[in-house]
Amino acid sequence: MNDSTAHVHRHRTMSKFLKLAHKFNSFYLNGLQKKECRAFIVDGIQVGLVQATVTIELSRYPNVFIVNPNSVTLNPAFRDYDERSANIESVLKEMKEKKLFVTLKGWRDECYEVRTMFADQPLLKMDRSATCLFGICNYGVDINGYVNHPQKGLCIWLQQRSLTKQTWPGKWDNMVAGGLSVGNSVIHTAHKEGEEEASLTADLMKNLQSAGTVSFFYESERGLFPDTEFVFDLELPPDFVPRNQDNEVEKFELVTATETVNRILSPDFKTTSCPVIIDFLIRHGIINPENEPRFPELVELLHVPLQSLYKKCDNLLTENGLSKAE
Amino acid sequence: MNDSTAHVHRHRTMSKFLKLAHKFNSFYLNGLQKKECRAFIVDGIQVGLVQATVTIELSRYPNVFIVNPNSVTLNPAFRDYDERSANIESVLKEMKEKKLFVTLKGWRDECYEVRTMFADQPLLKMDRSATCLFGICNYGVDINGYVNHPQKGLCIWLQQRSLTKQTWPGKWDNMVAGGLSVGNSVIHTAHKEGEEEASLTADLMKNLQSAGTVSFFYESERGLFPDTEFVFDLELPPDFVPRNQDNEVEKFELVTATETVNRILSPDFKTTSCPVIIDFLIRHGIINPENEPRFPELVELLHVPLQSLYKKCDNLLTENGLSKAE
Repeated sequence: MNDSTAHVHRHRTMSKFLKLAHKFNSFYLNGLQKKECRAFIVDGIQVGLVQATVTIELSRYPNVFIVNPNSVTLNPAFRDYDERSANIESVLKEMKEKKLFVTLKGWRDECYEVRTMFADQPLLKMDRSATCLFGICNYGVDINGYVNHPQKGLCIWLQQRSLTKQTWPGKWDNMVAGGLSVGNSVIHTAHKEGEEEASLTADLMKNLQSAGTVSFFYESERGLFPDTEFVFDLELPPDFVPRNQDNEVEKFELVTATETVNRILSPDFKTTSCPVIIDFLIRHGIINPENEPRFPELVELLHVPLQSLYKKCDNLLTENGLSKAE
Repeated sequence: MNDSTAHVHRHRTMSKFLKLAHKFNSFYLNGLQKKECRAFIVDGIQVGLVQATVTIELSRYPNVFIVNPNSVTLNPAFRDYDERSANIESVLKEMKEKKLFVTLKGWRDECYEVRTMFADQPLLKMDRSATCLFGICNYGVDINGYVNHPQKGLCIWLQQRSLTKQTWPGKWDNMVAGGLSVGNSVIHTAHKEGEEEASLTADLMKNLQSAGTVSFFYESERGLFPDTEFVFDLELPPDFVPRNQDNEVEKFELVTATETVNRILSPDFKTTSCPVIIDFLIRHGIINPENEPRFPELVELLHVPLQSLYKKCDNLLTENGLSKAE
């Protein structure tokens, strides 16, 4: 690298938002390149990624998982959705009993569908606490509850998560957020979570507006989190106060847009909820090309190509001459 | 591929919007993988891609371009922005005279900056008609002019491009759109184009709201078009009618959201303006997870990772043991 190249790179200073986008994309931007994970293959197609520490444990179940240098394949003898789901569940429950992985302490008895792309037919279901062990893409729904306040301008309702929650206890979070579990549509999940988490009535929910998705790929000590959130905006009257019904919320607070920025930049905010808030602040003009020099990059890091990620890896496996189903 | 895999893939039917997203991402989804282009390298870093047909012509100027099996490098002897710009311009003007490339017929005497990422220091400037020969990322500004009509609901102003325009003559387009040329900021370009194209007064422009970016990578017979558009929404009063001042517009029309969908799906719409409209329809809830089964994929294809595309190729060159500056 010569002097002038160094000069160019010096201009790539990261803003606070970009640093945050790198944090919630830790696996997309760093882990993925290292190629230390094995493709998780079900019915001949890749649906996830498995870390070395997880592979070691899965290899103790050769009747369920076939471990190869580049892949972990679910036994193709399991013929259908139910058989695959049951076999994986029994392994996971044994691992949970053995306390092998911290994430399984949060076993929920609530399952996520497993597939490569969102519109694909699901191949099996898996407890939501276990999907991060297999790098399965999670889907969730978020509602940005906001108020156009006569004095304070744009304000956003945030929730503090219950101190007893298994994941991110006591952290600040979006007003309403919930995972898309088996059998629930996106819109049904929005209504269900809106009622349970914040007592949003059918009347208030008439203003609910679909506004897109955010996609990112986070890695923590628990595992791998490729995540797509379906985003909704909901304008609320200034006198509305959310009230929690499911004991998963410590408290709610209505904060100004400026204060929202401070909150997401603080370590007290749930890292994986920041993309939804940043997307909201961008769509509402608070973060914009005038105050964020690397605006296009920030927007791209809110929409990383998860839907084509495993499809592409799929192709790589084929290119390398490996049989997909092995 | 076994029977059940075929079964899974059968569910990947494309909607009309997804087909359109594949069309305006023709190079991102197809061309890029073929690896038929050479990296265009300036000052040791990749800033573009050059097709074989263009490389042949550039190789006739060995004092300006150094052609290697994987790259076309601008002569590193050119020391600065001005020297690089002048040397490329003289080659391009000669090619224009020789009528070698159809795109150069549209020479504009209006330049775009050349750099890898938006926030980087520009390395040179190039006439906007020529950037597609080098796969240089273009940046533009779009204003979605919309009306919350008391009877018709959400309506959008569209323009028909002038029949005498060099590119996409007579096609339907977004209300206001313009390229980010040398010396103009995003917000300045929005105001300038708003005034010239649609007579948007300072008073109307007070409602202008930054709403994000779209990124896509299109290929046509003219060349390669990696493109990022800075998107603005502008709510307009029901009685406002845009009036063109620069003779680049045939006419304007206010159409309902439903009719907007018909327009972008028709061949009479400028392909590379569809991403901005689809993004608008998504942010305003018209296209949503209930009517678009492959919603996450559609959103991701409106934000393909252009800002990291050449950086990644950069790494590949290094990995392959090729010196970056050669």
